[in-house]
Amino acid sequence: MKQHYDAFAKASANHVPLSPLSFLERTAAIFPDRTALIYNDRRFTWAEVMDRVRRVASSLTQLGIGPGDTVSVMAANTPELFELHYAVPLTGAVLNTINTRLEPETVAYILDHGDARLVIADTAFSAVMQSAFQLNGKALPAIDIVDPDGPGGERIGSETYEELVAAGDPGFAFAGPDDEWAALALNYTSGTSGRPKGVVYHHRGAYLMAMGTPVAWELPRHPVYLYSVPMFHCNGWCHAWTMTLMAGTIVLIRQITGEAVFRLIAEHGITHLGGAPIVLSMLINTPEAQRASVPHKVKILTAGAPPPAAVLAGVKKLGFEVMQVYGLTETYGHVAQCLWQEDWDALAPDAQAERQSWQGVVFPMTETIDVVDRDNGRPVPHDGETQGEIVIRGNTVMKGYYKNPEATAEAFSGGAFKSGDAAVRHPNGYIQIRDRLKDVIISGGENISSVEVEGILHRHPDVVLAAVVALPDEKWGEVPCAFVELKEGSRETEDSLIAFCKGHMAGFKRPKKIVLTELPKTATGKIQKYVLRQEARAMTETTR
Amino acid sequence: MKQHYDAFAKASANHVPLSPLSFLERTAAIFPDRTALIYNDRRFTWAEVMDRVRRVASSLTQLGIGPGDTVSVMAANTPELFELHYAVPLTGAVLNTINTRLEPETVAYILDHGDARLVIADTAFSAVMQSAFQLNGKALPAIDIVDPDGPGGERIGSETYEELVAAGDPGFAFAGPDDEWAALALNYTSGTSGRPKGVVYHHRGAYLMAMGTPVAWELPRHPVYLYSVPMFHCNGWCHAWTMTLMAGTIVLIRQITGEAVFRLIAEHGITHLGGAPIVLSMLINTPEAQRASVPHKVKILTAGAPPPAAVLAGVKKLGFEVMQVYGLTETYGHVAQCLWQEDWDALAPDAQAERQSWQGVVFPMTETIDVVDRDNGRPVPHDGETQGEIVIRGNTVMKGYYKNPEATAEAFSGGAFKSGDAAVRHPNGYIQIRDRLKDVIISGGENISSVEVEGILHRHPDVVLAAVVALPDEKWGEVPCAFVELKEGSRETEDSLIAFCKGHMAGFKRPKKIVLTELPKTATGKIQKYVLRQEARAMTETTR
Repeated sequence: MKQHYDAFAKASANHVPLSPLSFLERTAAIFPDRTALIYNDRRFTWAEVMDRVRRVASSLTQLGIGPGDTVSVMAANTPELFELHYAVPLTGAVLNTINTRLEPETVAYILDHGDARLVIADTAFSAVMQSAFQLNGKALPAIDIVDPDGPGGERIGSETYEELVAAGDPGFAFAGPDDEWAALALNYTSGTSGRPKGVVYHHRGAYLMAMGTPVAWELPRHPVYLYSVPMFHCNGWCHAWTMTLMAGTIVLIRQITGEAVFRLIAEHGITHLGGAPIVLSMLINTPEAQRASVPHKVKILTAGAPPPAAVLAGVKKLGFEVMQVYGLTETYGHVAQCLWQEDWDALAPDAQAERQSWQGVVFPMTETIDVVDRDNGRPVPHDGETQGEIVIRGNTVMKGYYKNPEATAEAFSGGAFKSGDAAVRHPNGYIQIRDRLKDVIISGGENISSVEVEGILHRHPDVVLAAVVALPDEKWGEVPCAFVELKEGSRETEDSLIAFCKGHMAGFKRPKKIVLTELPKTATGKIQKYVLRQEARAMTETTR
Repeated sequence: MKQHYDAFAKASANHVPLSPLSFLERTAAIFPDRTALIYNDRRFTWAEVMDRVRRVASSLTQLGIGPGDTVSVMAANTPELFELHYAVPLTGAVLNTINTRLEPETVAYILDHGDARLVIADTAFSAVMQSAFQLNGKALPAIDIVDPDGPGGERIGSETYEELVAAGDPGFAFAGPDDEWAALALNYTSGTSGRPKGVVYHHRGAYLMAMGTPVAWELPRHPVYLYSVPMFHCNGWCHAWTMTLMAGTIVLIRQITGEAVFRLIAEHGITHLGGAPIVLSMLINTPEAQRASVPHKVKILTAGAPPPAAVLAGVKKLGFEVMQVYGLTETYGHVAQCLWQEDWDALAPDAQAERQSWQGVVFPMTETIDVVDRDNGRPVPHDGETQGEIVIRGNTVMKGYYKNPEATAEAFSGGAFKSGDAAVRHPNGYIQIRDRLKDVIISGGENISSVEVEGILHRHPDVVLAAVVALPDEKWGEVPCAFVELKEGSRETEDSLIAFCKGHMAGFKRPKKIVLTELPKTATGKIQKYVLRQEARAMTETTR
């Protein structure tokens, strides 16, 4: 009877808030002596990671960090950044990882908007951080990560990370949050339509993401995982937590190259890695002399721009098994995966590769992914042709945008998160992205906002109008290409404008090509970007 | 800042109640044409299962079943029972599976106490059900499962299950509960100490159980699973839901025999199964002529009484990989598992088997398992000697006992669920059960673990099964008494076995009496020690 079934109160025995912190507690207890982290010559066991995490958390507490505080971290994929995925939430604070390629202006914005109370930065990024402090007119308390294997840089902090470890209390209580809905991480988007937005993750979502990923990827116990996805990007697809759950060995790397991947496979027996399609291209383009053999199957998750069929076929030949996944910062990383269907076995390699480039079907812990008509919200037919917008509903959708209730409400209006990606559904239900509703350029796995680059170009006194679109690029997937209308009589050239860009934006955002021309416009004066996209595509084909 | 992080309301986009129902929705959408169920000559794809589930749910609704109603099911492991794991909760009702070996008195008690509104019974159990109705003085509305492969029996229902399917609406809305804490199942304990208690499961717990099991058992996609665990027992360890999540093929069987297991392995390529140690014994004792070869690794989860080392070694030789798990009805099934440690590779086979019989470490979705001193609640030292009680805390602990707030409060007092099992913790943190607290034999002030004595008896090559209970004794208070099943044709006697014991254990642990007999077992293959205890008591009274 309903009243009897409803009569039970939640008790500490039977209701525990979900948190990825529990994975470290379990793995460190069961496999204390297994290698957790390998970074060049440094190795840490799970017991050591646990010890260091507790110490750092206790030191952060000593520095006044506590529940709801933002701790901003600008670091490469080193042991410190991995550990901070536990140490920061262990204090109740929120981990804000910052894209290491950002220019000072945006870093300054993130620190200010995100209410950062402490900065932990690799000295490789201390100059950028210091510029950001200057722009904000305010230096934050800082801790330096001094990595002997990094390029180094000036120290800006009061202490080093290792001093936090040394001074910390190894007996610091290890406990998750009281509420699984509590904030865990703050990740800024690339800001496609203006300022970057702060995406807030909660403990429940990260826990479920980590539990669903082994099911989706068929992860065995003790995977040897190469962390080639930057941890500043959706917390490295939440794999820091997933690999802890699986008691894996995580191999860390500052700068990924094809040669390094092959070397680490041979040296450590890497079994799994993730990366943008550029990583796949790297592997294919590694000279044979630098390629160690791949003695076992290595599984790769790839996300970002769909990998070209030729690239998929190429990596398969090298011994890699690739699965395309899809997701956004707002969804903690991957929420769709291109699961292999048995009837694909009979297809020709090209057709197989084409299927494999689809974004596919929903992850186990994601509840629903639909492609809906933007006007009426109804699912599009599964005809492989009708375009709609991808919308996602589930527990791995962000809490919302930090201090931006309007954008949050708009993103969730309609009852699901609106991705801004246009897609079709094939008759088997698989999703394939057709275009980006927002004009994001994905270059080497990094999202570049065309609006942002246009804004900078518009700062030049001679620029009347600028439009930036993606130029297909073999190496980077896409690179920015700018179409610019100049003032009459201007003497600016492509080269001089590129030089102007150099002074104002991060290298990866810089247009690789600038075309001086009159821009095609609609009757109401809107720039017809699709025309420019066609032109850019035509340029690539000509140059091939 | 905390106030900003806390400002987010839960929305339908980012907060979806966890429910195992979502697994069927996903798998039926992604793998509609894969075989879901195989039962003798009947096969159903996932699309067919989904269709049947919707139809049955709609018919149940027509019968007036809705949120919070109890639907009692007494059935063998047939497709109907599998489908009811979805169809009943889909109506919002609670699935109450009844042990098929129970006598009418207990069935009557369960129907009455559980507030059953509808009974669905295989005709094999219709006689028992009818007797139960008579005992209660009230016949409930009933539906018959008519299984041509079953032994048959009188029809007691208004309709058959297949009539529910035929009359049902295939367009019935597929939706989970509004609240993940809503009741999903009602499972009565075996009631070893009085009346059985009604254990209430919720959707959140079953979802997490199903998500944690692939991580714990390294389940691949598409396992071929032999459902040898009765689904009336902890909902078959929640594997009905887990195997749906993994898009497995579930092979169903009414009556498990060693020959049948080997035949189904050969016929369908079974990769996984679960069972009480008696299933392991069955496999070992299957005559070689009836054993098909095991061409691939078959993984077995075993739970119940810890399997004797000799049994573990025996099944390993046959090509099975066994993992010992531990749990209770109150914990949705398994919450501890004996994970292999790499340093065990170097041990002698006997020592390996001994380690493998430990209950081990916590499952990924269980938060904590401790062994605590019953007097002060403090964890016992990890010395492999100090006994305490196993206590469990996590989201796969029941809501509580149905209509029994006193028992619920008592079970949860101390902040975790008290298992009633006595155990030690080894230096590596692994838990080993010494006994049910009530199975401990106290002889001359010394605690004797019946499990330990049983393990030694099992080393004797002629011993198939052994159970040790307390025999009241005027001098010592209690002494061990063994009940032993011998291999067919064995010439061992009570005296020769007592002589065997003399060589292998301390005098005070040695059974003072050994009875050669077939052991009474529960439906799940657990030895009914309470029956043996009664026999032992009767023996004492006779001899006095």
